[in-house]
Amino acid sequence: MYLEANIKLAVYAPNEFGKAQAKTAEGVMRYGVNPIACVIDAACAGQSVKALTGIESDAPIVSTIAEAKALGAGALLLGTAWSGGAMPSEWKKDIEQAILADMDIVNGLHDFLCDDAKLSKLARERGKRLFDVRRSPEKLPVACGRVMKEDAFVVLTVGTDCSVGKMTASLEIRKSAREAGLDCQFIATGQTGMMIEGGDGIAIDRVIGDFMAGATEMMIVEKAKKHPGSLILVEGQGSLSHPGFSGVTMALVHGSCPQAMILCHRPSRSIIKGSDRAEAGADGAGMPISSYTRLIETYESMAAYMRPAKVVGLALNTHDLSEEERAEALRKAEEETGLPACDPVRESGKKLLDAIQSFRNSQR
Amino acid sequence: MYLEANIKLAVYAPNEFGKAQAKTAEGVMRYGVNPIACVIDAACAGQSVKALTGIESDAPIVSTIAEAKALGAGALLLGTAWSGGAMPSEWKKDIEQAILADMDIVNGLHDFLCDDAKLSKLARERGKRLFDVRRSPEKLPVACGRVMKEDAFVVLTVGTDCSVGKMTASLEIRKSAREAGLDCQFIATGQTGMMIEGGDGIAIDRVIGDFMAGATEMMIVEKAKKHPGSLILVEGQGSLSHPGFSGVTMALVHGSCPQAMILCHRPSRSIIKGSDRAEAGADGAGMPISSYTRLIETYESMAAYMRPAKVVGLALNTHDLSEEERAEALRKAEEETGLPACDPVRESGKKLLDAIQSFRNSQR
Repeated sequence: MYLEANIKLAVYAPNEFGKAQAKTAEGVMRYGVNPIACVIDAACAGQSVKALTGIESDAPIVSTIAEAKALGAGALLLGTAWSGGAMPSEWKKDIEQAILADMDIVNGLHDFLCDDAKLSKLARERGKRLFDVRRSPEKLPVACGRVMKEDAFVVLTVGTDCSVGKMTASLEIRKSAREAGLDCQFIATGQTGMMIEGGDGIAIDRVIGDFMAGATEMMIVEKAKKHPGSLILVEGQGSLSHPGFSGVTMALVHGSCPQAMILCHRPSRSIIKGSDRAEAGADGAGMPISSYTRLIETYESMAAYMRPAKVVGLALNTHDLSEEERAEALRKAEEETGLPACDPVRESGKKLLDAIQSFRNSQR
Repeated sequence: MYLEANIKLAVYAPNEFGKAQAKTAEGVMRYGVNPIACVIDAACAGQSVKALTGIESDAPIVSTIAEAKALGAGALLLGTAWSGGAMPSEWKKDIEQAILADMDIVNGLHDFLCDDAKLSKLARERGKRLFDVRRSPEKLPVACGRVMKEDAFVVLTVGTDCSVGKMTASLEIRKSAREAGLDCQFIATGQTGMMIEGGDGIAIDRVIGDFMAGATEMMIVEKAKKHPGSLILVEGQGSLSHPGFSGVTMALVHGSCPQAMILCHRPSRSIIKGSDRAEAGADGAGMPISSYTRLIETYESMAAYMRPAKVVGLALNTHDLSEEERAEALRKAEEETGLPACDPVRESGKKLLDAIQSFRNSQR
């Protein structure tokens, strides 16, 4: 299930473009493979994408589906969420208009468009596709290490916590790899990553427990068969130290059979996300983030049940630190672990790519 | 969702009682909390349960729902599966008759009775309940260590592989604990365990990834609030070393926040179940089962992300070994780990209960 890479996207973000709610829209514009025809947000129509978000893009911001069509849009991507309740009627109207204007729809929301009888019928009649990105496939295998038989070098991003920049680190490394002329593939395991890939991937955290690792394995095997010898970057989720999400992370570690891992961290975070809720076990104090050393030991020893794997670098998300704090965080990370560390967004993915390539070469 | 413990069960196993297919029926008869009114299997009606299965039970084997009713059955438990395709029409007829005869239905199958419009309507009209054991609840929390705030001692059974006797070990320990007059509770996390408990529990391997640990946590917190100070035995699933199921196991480890664990193993098994399939990573050779020492280190270090936990004993499933092999397996297990080991079915759960109680007392 994916959108062809030449189809131009209209990024739909009514009243939200440039705001926190539109993170998916920004992710897609920053890293997506499909060209962007325009953004649709009447509230800031005519303004500049770069001025609003810092993203280097000349795509215009327009108000209507008709304008998007005139700019060559072949798919409408829902790049934000509305706040609670049912889908607003203007959204439904716009989606209908987009289908009538010959566009596919890419939807990362919890509500599935395929479950809407009217939209489904219209899409079928018009031969258009509704990509409900979060819906998991019906038939999934149980994992059994199939990845180890494939000719590819698999790198998984892992974290000290959830929401620390695992997807972004993978995408920056891919960018650097492609600039270097390498065959480098990205496996999306969450809805934003999938939308960046035009719908390709599986949202692993929505898959039933027994099939999470199998779904991961299936995606990697398919990719490796199409791209033998490639570098495959798997988007990580959660953390093996997270009370709620460690099961998903574990399935990704064993499903992907990584040979190398990049450990991602956000230095401004000192406790596990969500662990400071009053009802949590830590009584409001929160559970401290574990040390790099402990987490590296954990990830390497758990991955080893499939095959030997090494954490080869650290990706730090330092966007909320001063220049001085950033330098200090990177210095401390390198000192504690003896591994190269960088902020792949502030710098680029090159330092981490070099670490991966140098380790890969040492293993041949 | 559970059946009151005084309701008598009719165990439905047409054409299968005493055969491998009817494992659930046998599990319920061996360990279930509800009294057994009878078994329904026309193929062996009139024969003895003990002669067919070795289970110490005087329950008669009958042919019809009407006979079960006359014996005081208040619920029909589907204790076997049919082979492929849709539910046989005789099953449907029998289920309808059972509802008309004032029985609730307990169903552990993949097919949900609540999805059958006719059966649902009939059950509603008659005020009877359809327990679809495998269906997971709609609203589940994300785990955050809530168990650690409860007054209970939590013991999780963990494994060297899947299907090695984790449920059985928990149930034998509970039996010994109750014989000793202790307040001991069992948390069912799979469909057979749930049916033994009259429908109580959640089949964790059917829960969506993000909520597996939360579902585990929720069950334990509820149980601990009802039974303060109790010993809570959590049924484990899979293994942290299993390529397909480690995610489910990880969620159970972090969701249950155990203080002690019992490591379960089947000495006749030398490779991970399913890892010798031709398409598996091990190329048909299979992945060897890891040593006790390695697995104990893994379980203890992963549990420690929530709170300190210790593997305090080993449960060996030796039903397919000779007396000599059994003694040798137990001796080797104790020698390698320095922990007490026993086969809780051949002996009883007492040795493991003693290990748990002695560790619990040392921690006060």
